[in-house]
Amino acid sequence: MIAFADRAAFLAALEDLPEPCSASTMAARARQGELTKPAGSLGRLEEIATFMAGWQQVRTPRLDRVRGAVFAANHGVAARGVSAFPAEVTAQMVANFMAGGAAINVLARSCGAELAIVPLDLDQPTGDIAREPALTEVECLAALNAGAAVATADTQLLFVGEMGIGNTTPAAALSAAAFGGDAAQWCGRGTGIDNAALSRKIEAVDQALALHQGHCADALETLRRLGGREIAAMAGAILAARLQRMPVLLDGFIACAAIAPLVARNPQFTSHCLAAHCSAETGHAQLLEHLKLEPLLHLGLRLGEGSGAALAVPLIRAALATHGEMATFDQAAVAKSR
Amino acid sequence: MIAFADRAAFLAALEDLPEPCSASTMAARARQGELTKPAGSLGRLEEIATFMAGWQQVRTPRLDRVRGAVFAANHGVAARGVSAFPAEVTAQMVANFMAGGAAINVLARSCGAELAIVPLDLDQPTGDIAREPALTEVECLAALNAGAAVATADTQLLFVGEMGIGNTTPAAALSAAAFGGDAAQWCGRGTGIDNAALSRKIEAVDQALALHQGHCADALETLRRLGGREIAAMAGAILAARLQRMPVLLDGFIACAAIAPLVARNPQFTSHCLAAHCSAETGHAQLLEHLKLEPLLHLGLRLGEGSGAALAVPLIRAALATHGEMATFDQAAVAKSR
Repeated sequence: MIAFADRAAFLAALEDLPEPCSASTMAARARQGELTKPAGSLGRLEEIATFMAGWQQVRTPRLDRVRGAVFAANHGVAARGVSAFPAEVTAQMVANFMAGGAAINVLARSCGAELAIVPLDLDQPTGDIAREPALTEVECLAALNAGAAVATADTQLLFVGEMGIGNTTPAAALSAAAFGGDAAQWCGRGTGIDNAALSRKIEAVDQALALHQGHCADALETLRRLGGREIAAMAGAILAARLQRMPVLLDGFIACAAIAPLVARNPQFTSHCLAAHCSAETGHAQLLEHLKLEPLLHLGLRLGEGSGAALAVPLIRAALATHGEMATFDQAAVAKSR
Repeated sequence: MIAFADRAAFLAALEDLPEPCSASTMAARARQGELTKPAGSLGRLEEIATFMAGWQQVRTPRLDRVRGAVFAANHGVAARGVSAFPAEVTAQMVANFMAGGAAINVLARSCGAELAIVPLDLDQPTGDIAREPALTEVECLAALNAGAAVATADTQLLFVGEMGIGNTTPAAALSAAAFGGDAAQWCGRGTGIDNAALSRKIEAVDQALALHQGHCADALETLRRLGGREIAAMAGAILAARLQRMPVLLDGFIACAAIAPLVARNPQFTSHCLAAHCSAETGHAQLLEHLKLEPLLHLGLRLGEGSGAALAVPLIRAALATHGEMATFDQAAVAKSR
């Protein structure tokens, strides 16, 4: 199991990322050319199959074990009234996750994924980022490692999601810190806030950026100052996956913002990631552009929890099924194009 | 089982289309507002659930029986060299469908759909639309009814696909006849033709439009003159589905072109349809705009066979699963937004 002993270990991991197996990628691409269909006619399914082959290091990748994890945490900044829901809803929704009644439970069952629910010190909200760091270094490392722990070695595809009332506010701050732009550009309506709450949110992000941005010397410092426990956990999980050459299906704005500080440091970081969807939350489309990822789905979702990622799992299954199970031109005695 | 006795019966059916149950639609919409998620946060999944509720006439629709059908036929116009593949490939691919080795076989298994393979007089190509009608009235009615036969009453969601070397040529002609524009605007590269073949294809469509357009007094006449057997069969299946209030997942350019003459007659015709995807074939995006349908997937597919529709089935399943299985705010004791 991957764990980061200290700041230096985390930063060193980020600088020394494993790559996919190019021989497997090429073998998979060659197989695609032999299957009974016009070359390229399965579009992104073909790209997904070769992507998965490279990371699983085999010509015909499999998807028997898909693992999802939902991290939950509370945010000091929520006390400023930046969400449409009260902070108690984080714990109430964790209970709903545990009981199997939330959207992500249904969607994980629907796509055949195992689901871990990981609440992180719900009774200890982070510091209010508008006036102090969200986490201490020790707290941030603990959250990174809680995330890394879900990337178990037998997982063939990982996705992570989150629950945390107020967490589009730190996500906007992380996005702005990583890729520039002002607070208003990255702040959206989250679960559905009104104009007054949106103004408070933009002001909080402006203050957070003014306070912390000069002190964010590395990715861990940015996560610690502007993030949150569930956000650091997602970053830790996605980095731990990469260290094991495990492909990751990225969910929405907050999951993508969690890795923004890592991508700002190392632009190759997202090579093992597929963007499951583009959400309706304001910042997500531009964030995906900065991550250089083309989303698989555009369904107007804005729920989080890993819901968009779970919805994309059947596309990965379909891509691998066609890749592995279709007949070749020779097997089926079908003529190739003239 | 639906069958059209003659031209008049077909045309009368098109003018008297059943509507969804508005009480069921409203009951489903009310349930969506009670589920443990911010209002509207499941985006298009919520629309799909209410759409399915209306057509199945229940508050919580189900998807136990999904049925797909692939119709195959040959085209006289193929002899003009408008495809990258020889016409023998239609029959070879039907054998591949029967043996279970084609993309649609794999995708139907992957999404849990029953699949019917319906070859239609493969040894009798249609007339070359550039110089004569594709089909006689009797042949066209037979094809419409072969299609209608797959819309069996116990089907909860239907999709149709096709195989027919050269069939993007009649599809382009049908699109232009229904919605205007010149041949070049509707002709794409199909399975991957070169510039010379594309010129021949555009010329064939131009000639077909010049020859037939003044004689297309009704939807059947348009289908008969400019279509083909698999194309008429898809139109018959989609109309027969509507007559039974059965929702349909539309596939790519050719499946959408098959209903273009029906939509030109009755703009309400697509109310029971969801567009599964927007393909990479030139005419599909503009055709979907004319059908007033927003596609669920954008994956750069250009295969046909019903492949894009099969890929969208898990999204419908996921929409119905969240709608039917999520806990309500009351059940889970989660606070609603302030």
